[in-house]
Amino acid sequence: MALRAKRPSLSITVWDRDSSTLGELLKRGLADRVETDPAAAVKDADLVVLCTPVATMEQLASAFAPALSGDVVVTDTGSVKLPVVDRLTPILGRRFVGAHPMAGSERSGILAARANLFDSAPCIVTPGGDASSVSLARVEEFWTALGCRLTRMTPCEHDKLVSRISHLPHALAFALMNLVLDTLPPGAQDLAGGSFRDATRVAMSDPTLWHGILTENRTEVSAALREMATLLTSMASALGEEKADSLLDFLTRAKKHRDSLPLPPPEENP
Amino acid sequence: MALRAKRPSLSITVWDRDSSTLGELLKRGLADRVETDPAAAVKDADLVVLCTPVATMEQLASAFAPALSGDVVVTDTGSVKLPVVDRLTPILGRRFVGAHPMAGSERSGILAARANLFDSAPCIVTPGGDASSVSLARVEEFWTALGCRLTRMTPCEHDKLVSRISHLPHALAFALMNLVLDTLPPGAQDLAGGSFRDATRVAMSDPTLWHGILTENRTEVSAALREMATLLTSMASALGEEKADSLLDFLTRAKKHRDSLPLPPPEENP
Repeated sequence: MALRAKRPSLSITVWDRDSSTLGELLKRGLADRVETDPAAAVKDADLVVLCTPVATMEQLASAFAPALSGDVVVTDTGSVKLPVVDRLTPILGRRFVGAHPMAGSERSGILAARANLFDSAPCIVTPGGDASSVSLARVEEFWTALGCRLTRMTPCEHDKLVSRISHLPHALAFALMNLVLDTLPPGAQDLAGGSFRDATRVAMSDPTLWHGILTENRTEVSAALREMATLLTSMASALGEEKADSLLDFLTRAKKHRDSLPLPPPEENP
Repeated sequence: MALRAKRPSLSITVWDRDSSTLGELLKRGLADRVETDPAAAVKDADLVVLCTPVATMEQLASAFAPALSGDVVVTDTGSVKLPVVDRLTPILGRRFVGAHPMAGSERSGILAARANLFDSAPCIVTPGGDASSVSLARVEEFWTALGCRLTRMTPCEHDKLVSRISHLPHALAFALMNLVLDTLPPGAQDLAGGSFRDATRVAMSDPTLWHGILTENRTEVSAALREMATLLTSMASALGEEKADSLLDFLTRAKKHRDSLPLPPPEENP
């Protein structure tokens, strides 16, 4: 939808495992051609974008790799990058450049699509050591055309970064929801105000997708979870010991930096 | 503003420590009378609503208590109830019935006001053992008139409840912001998507106010923080031991219950 809006002259071919989604895309004019065979879908492509769960990408790339023409470039949207780069580079070689657009919401499916999803959204591009400079340039051009603000880093740097700014907030949302269920009388959550609703919004995300993401990035996510556990325990200790000044400093520092976050793109949470 | 909109015939008197706020209220037609002396403000009142930080309420109630007429009723909006009921009951007696409307946001001040703030918002009413049934009825009538959905519980039950559904989400927001600052390169937070922004939104709240709330409810908040730390540590262990099924069940349960939360009131986060 974003590509149609920003580059209407491009020809778009879509593969999906679900043929009803493909029919809907044609009906809405969002695809010029649809395919149920991955190899047929990439025929004559200049650029291929893998937008499936990370666990599916290796099998899919193996299925379409033989059909790729000489100079086609491949990118992806996976939320974890080291496993993706490690698995896809042997299959795709210099043509593959991983990426992670930091956009989307707890919703999924075609009804959650919007053309301005990527406007001003950060996109992290993570070229592996094998990626060619031509592939890198073409992939960065693609994400820039969609409206993203680009940042380049290694797959390792990416996985550490997103474990703290994306995977940890998701894990906290799921955990907070379950903690309330386990420690309060039934229905207590219905009395919650906006802070609980916002803190748990992404617990509406697809559990299977997030189980895959947390598991693929298990080393960094485990570290982030343990760091958070340590921080919460030290807050509890500060409260018990009435270390008033240190707790106030802690809260004040958080507010100062939260206040200075860039403004979100429009319609972030429709 | 809500009272003006829902009960335009009522006469509203406002006390505030800040005289510029009082001038602004008169200018906007939101108060019929303003006072800088608490005792003068409660003269001829039928109902008094204390809307200050919890730490200020005892001193304020002592200042105006001698000026209250015979059957005036007093309620409050404090986020912690046991300390408030314990401190105000000796001063105000049977006329006091504490309440906690679960509304508001990280913003404060007159520019953050909106008339529909309380529409469908939960309001927890926490009568102490001394409160008269007349006082309780009048206070519940007041919050119902503003549009709230009422729930009645003891101050202790309230403090445990809000420690998990409100104070913990706030503590997590402050902690997550600081964790990102401490574990990632400078500026990393600017790459965050909506999950981080929503998870940290309430870290924009007033640190002094929240330091007061967390400290007043320290026993329950400490317990909630330690429960969360334990839960996060067990998630980290599950990831390390590749207990795939248990983690997926954990995420699925959270999603199921988050999906069934009541819809938020309109314009919750303007």
